[in-house]
Amino acid sequence: MFSERIVGSLAGGSAIRAMFEQGNILKKKYGAENVYDFALGNPDPEPPVSVINDLKKYAGEPGIHKYMANAGYPDVREKIAAYMKKETGVEFTGNNIIMVTGAAAGLSITMCSILNPGDEVIVIAPFFGEYKGYVGNFGGKIVRVPSIPGTFQLDVPAIEKAINAKTKAIILNSPNNPSGAVYTEESLKALNVVLEEAEKKNGNAIYVVSDEPYVKIVYDGVKVPAISAIFKNSIVVNSFSKSLALPGERIDYVAVNPAIEEADVLMDALIFCNRTLGFVNAPGLFQKVAAEHLDDVAGLDAYKERRDALYEILIETGYECEKPQGAFYLFPKAPIENDVEFCNRAINHRLVLVSGTGFGYPGYFRLAYCVSMETIKNSKESFAALRKEF
Amino acid sequence: MFSERIVGSLAGGSAIRAMFEQGNILKKKYGAENVYDFALGNPDPEPPVSVINDLKKYAGEPGIHKYMANAGYPDVREKIAAYMKKETGVEFTGNNIIMVTGAAAGLSITMCSILNPGDEVIVIAPFFGEYKGYVGNFGGKIVRVPSIPGTFQLDVPAIEKAINAKTKAIILNSPNNPSGAVYTEESLKALNVVLEEAEKKNGNAIYVVSDEPYVKIVYDGVKVPAISAIFKNSIVVNSFSKSLALPGERIDYVAVNPAIEEADVLMDALIFCNRTLGFVNAPGLFQKVAAEHLDDVAGLDAYKERRDALYEILIETGYECEKPQGAFYLFPKAPIENDVEFCNRAINHRLVLVSGTGFGYPGYFRLAYCVSMETIKNSKESFAALRKEF
Repeated sequence: MFSERIVGSLAGGSAIRAMFEQGNILKKKYGAENVYDFALGNPDPEPPVSVINDLKKYAGEPGIHKYMANAGYPDVREKIAAYMKKETGVEFTGNNIIMVTGAAAGLSITMCSILNPGDEVIVIAPFFGEYKGYVGNFGGKIVRVPSIPGTFQLDVPAIEKAINAKTKAIILNSPNNPSGAVYTEESLKALNVVLEEAEKKNGNAIYVVSDEPYVKIVYDGVKVPAISAIFKNSIVVNSFSKSLALPGERIDYVAVNPAIEEADVLMDALIFCNRTLGFVNAPGLFQKVAAEHLDDVAGLDAYKERRDALYEILIETGYECEKPQGAFYLFPKAPIENDVEFCNRAINHRLVLVSGTGFGYPGYFRLAYCVSMETIKNSKESFAALRKEF
Repeated sequence: MFSERIVGSLAGGSAIRAMFEQGNILKKKYGAENVYDFALGNPDPEPPVSVINDLKKYAGEPGIHKYMANAGYPDVREKIAAYMKKETGVEFTGNNIIMVTGAAAGLSITMCSILNPGDEVIVIAPFFGEYKGYVGNFGGKIVRVPSIPGTFQLDVPAIEKAINAKTKAIILNSPNNPSGAVYTEESLKALNVVLEEAEKKNGNAIYVVSDEPYVKIVYDGVKVPAISAIFKNSIVVNSFSKSLALPGERIDYVAVNPAIEEADVLMDALIFCNRTLGFVNAPGLFQKVAAEHLDDVAGLDAYKERRDALYEILIETGYECEKPQGAFYLFPKAPIENDVEFCNRAINHRLVLVSGTGFGYPGYFRLAYCVSMETIKNSKESFAALRKEF
């Protein structure tokens, strides 16, 4: 009756969203303070006060809420180009930037613009499950290449093996959701050598699509290598959702490396897809405000404190876990092979976790630690009791 | 190199957007005050002051900018359901409402949810050209049925002839863009009889997808018949873009008639498509604000004054034109058969018009009169001079 493809997909759903709803059921039953919900990467700090003030300021500015060009406000695109140039050394101009309705929209229009049916897109497991839709909707095929267990760094020789004449793109996501890993500059440069050789051999470009919502959420003095500076054929999808703590507002941008052959045609394609897929333009008010806060990051110290506290609890209660240097996730090893069963058993302890299987990496589970310190501290007993079951 | 389908479509573009950009070129050359740009339906009133005030109020409310359920804030959905129930008499609940990132998004996820490859969707010409993308992206095929020339009312017998076993939906858009026609209750009821008979004969539902951005922009005491009250299998795509004059903010909703068989599955499909196509959720701040202004409409008196003034000018300078009762467009007959050539010739008089061909209805042209009264008054000489050429 309805779309068979869509109705057939409904049962699959999103592992994260399913646990998010499971958490809400538990909270109704036991009270929110008695549930330790680590399911959703929903930044808990409020946006910076200066962002709120700018929202109020721009809200009343005449003309701000009207249609603008599908690519976004020209002054906003120029500001972002200048920022990208400063950060990467690459000669971005406003013509290389398109404002989008969230990073999901950015990835969707990118895949719509570059993929032909049957094209392959390499993703590094563990990976954000929604990539399957963004690629599959446009006839592309996901090819999973596991990262190195434990460190979750790039396994460059494995990527090299996965490349063939059909490879159109590779999605990078560093700092990574769910592992928190920040890919090293060395590994990225090695990957670039592999990609350039494959491009020469196969005679076509392999685009590096860099999904960077967590690029500013890093700890311990780590610096995330600039993807645009390393890869000529790079398309960066940035996001204000996490850096400004406003994921519900859907405001982000895509930056097309000016070194891409026919970069102007790619920009036209992105703008066309933005329009015809129904995004039309990124929300006007938030475009103007985000452009004033390109260097800001909300809640970084609080995230670090929580990472450290939750990591300590996991180690003390007997879990195996890396201490990641980015994002707001931990990705410990499940004490049993079946991580889905492990997460289901955790529910009995009012712990809401997401299985690694949901990220294409069985045997692990994800904790989003953008929750209160109180929740983290109070969860210790539950983690201990859960661990003892195995 | 990129998507062949997309790159192949780039030349086609949007007739409206192309003229919008043509207008900007003219303005740079001759000065904005010397160009009469009727290309884009970009509401020129500012949003109501009460809307701006609510934006400022909600901007600082804790938690407002976070992720919420993909369907939108539950309280917002409840408020809209109550409003829809009041307006239509149909028993809508919050579970029948999904908040979307603009009407374009609403149409896109609706087509994604209902269409199987090869399904046909009837559109009434003249029609908004973007429908082609929203239908074609999901394997559907547009079937054009012209409205009655001059009045642009539904030609129900012609629609009946166009229906076959592959017909999955019909898109209605009343008040119509570009003609401004408001479909009569009588014609809609006659259409309902035709659809119900076809559904019985073919054994499957034909969904009435009602694109209603202009439902509140009506004049002369006309009331737009409630689509949900007439058609059981109706999906209403409403919009705040025009009623609150904030088209750049992308905030709208879809209301699924609870009488649709398996309406809950359709809702799940819409929510799934909203997520996986990359919309994720409608912007949070604007959800909260829009829900406080369901009865408001910005600039109605000004639109009426402009409609009357521009209509007078067209009649006085020798054009054939209906006086429409809705939206903010006039759709006069082109003095020559070739409406595209006519619009190109208009450029020489610094008049920016959009050809009827862009709306699947050659021989006419569209004027968006959401421009200043000064622009309208000053355009008279140009209209007269253009008319004299033919």
